[in-house]
Amino acid sequence: MTLNSLLHEQRQQINAVLEQQLDARVSPASKLHAAMHYALVLGGKRVRPFLTYSVGGICGAPKAALDTAAAAVECIHAYSLVHDDLPAMDNDDLRRGQPTCHRAFDEATAILAGDALQTLAFELLSSDNAELPAARQVAMLRVLAHASGSRGMCGGQALDLAATDAHLSEPELEQVHQLKTGALITAAVQLGVLAGNDEAQQYYNDFSQFATWLGLAFQVQDDILDVVGSTETLGKTNGKDEAANKSTYVQLLGLDAARVKLTQLHQKALQALHGIPYNTQLLENFAEQLLNRDH
Amino acid sequence: MTLNSLLHEQRQQINAVLEQQLDARVSPASKLHAAMHYALVLGGKRVRPFLTYSVGGICGAPKAALDTAAAAVECIHAYSLVHDDLPAMDNDDLRRGQPTCHRAFDEATAILAGDALQTLAFELLSSDNAELPAARQVAMLRVLAHASGSRGMCGGQALDLAATDAHLSEPELEQVHQLKTGALITAAVQLGVLAGNDEAQQYYNDFSQFATWLGLAFQVQDDILDVVGSTETLGKTNGKDEAANKSTYVQLLGLDAARVKLTQLHQKALQALHGIPYNTQLLENFAEQLLNRDH
Repeated sequence: MTLNSLLHEQRQQINAVLEQQLDARVSPASKLHAAMHYALVLGGKRVRPFLTYSVGGICGAPKAALDTAAAAVECIHAYSLVHDDLPAMDNDDLRRGQPTCHRAFDEATAILAGDALQTLAFELLSSDNAELPAARQVAMLRVLAHASGSRGMCGGQALDLAATDAHLSEPELEQVHQLKTGALITAAVQLGVLAGNDEAQQYYNDFSQFATWLGLAFQVQDDILDVVGSTETLGKTNGKDEAANKSTYVQLLGLDAARVKLTQLHQKALQALHGIPYNTQLLENFAEQLLNRDH
Repeated sequence: MTLNSLLHEQRQQINAVLEQQLDARVSPASKLHAAMHYALVLGGKRVRPFLTYSVGGICGAPKAALDTAAAAVECIHAYSLVHDDLPAMDNDDLRRGQPTCHRAFDEATAILAGDALQTLAFELLSSDNAELPAARQVAMLRVLAHASGSRGMCGGQALDLAATDAHLSEPELEQVHQLKTGALITAAVQLGVLAGNDEAQQYYNDFSQFATWLGLAFQVQDDILDVVGSTETLGKTNGKDEAANKSTYVQLLGLDAARVKLTQLHQKALQALHGIPYNTQLLENFAEQLLNRDH
């Protein structure tokens, strides 16, 4: 199977799982439920679920546990997008080529939908899961909570907001990205390992390291695309970072040096996989494609 | 020890635990951290932690597990207040006699602080806890997630917003309250039981029932206080419900019948305790005091 077919198949898989998990938990608040559905099910590249499935597959994880883990990570990602788009934050009208959640519904509903999507992530990970030892389930919850909170994604978003109109150094910018985007990408990979067999646990740090470099590279690529991509291709308003006077790798290093940086990070990610005695070709191919994407 | 001394002591206990848990998790985003601290540590009645400690004590739970559980519930409560107060929601300027989080900081920071406080709840409950079997820890996470999400507190808040300018029937109003306030109060009690010894687990439903009636009574009392309390005593703007044309028990039943309802619910709560062969005098006294409060 080609990578593209696999990506397509796993996108359909995670979409079906998300739909099914949401359907199994209908809220009495119908508008809230509709907004959660809107934010969660309507598209997206599903990078994080792909990583959970791929790494979990390499580590011998049971499929049901990966469905739950991948869905949980995507719930956190979706919640963060809904809140990031709010008027008080990035004030975005478009997301994935569609009206943002607060435009399609209203601001209060979008705040609550984000809140409830975050909760859903932890509800999913703590749901009955006969295939995993409870201690492993607790470890997965701990990893996702740490990656999402004030010392992870949410802290990164706060640093990012604070950095508007500021001139960050490269280490500062790296910290912002590592938290804002990298933490959850790393968690997606770590959940795949934690759902895996006992032997695979010894490669937890190698997989984590791979994810850290991949996540950072992904963000550098995002900064590059914000400058060179068109609004049509991206499905979101491009040049937003510059308009908002946000610190980016392109602004800090220039476009050419940002591209060099991207290549270096890509290499580091691949090197991290060398310590793992399993077939990681799929992850290498995915990194290659992800970092050469044009949207 | 009198109930008041005990309430005071446990309030100091939970405040110290919250402070300590937050200090142990300093965010690199200093403003976010300050906003979380502001929302979490500055006062409040600490009704939910008291229930977790009391019920846990009755059920023979280890103290460290109760500290964590009580702190987690209070994080969820604090996050919900921060978000409920936002301009797009209840648009409140005062909370506990102090500027609301978005007034003391800014709207973006308040959104993120609420988000991160929710995450912190799950981070706490999933932290290393040698005193509890992992399966029990997962059950506690599941209970808190269910109570907080779209079929619990968050769903209740969405229904409450939708009910502005609407005339709810009594069952509809009961559903709103049961979700918005009752679900988390019930979870606070359930976490106390789940942290307890094996024998106590058979009274899980009795304790839960007690909590359900207590939570509903608490909300009826809130509706009554909104009408009869003064802004000074409440520490928040009174008459807000009426001004916002929100459905309340007082509006639906009238003040006198709301008071009768409160008494009935109080009795039901006490009856639920009858099936439990432990000394529950503390819970009876607490219910008595809570439902006779004037703020």
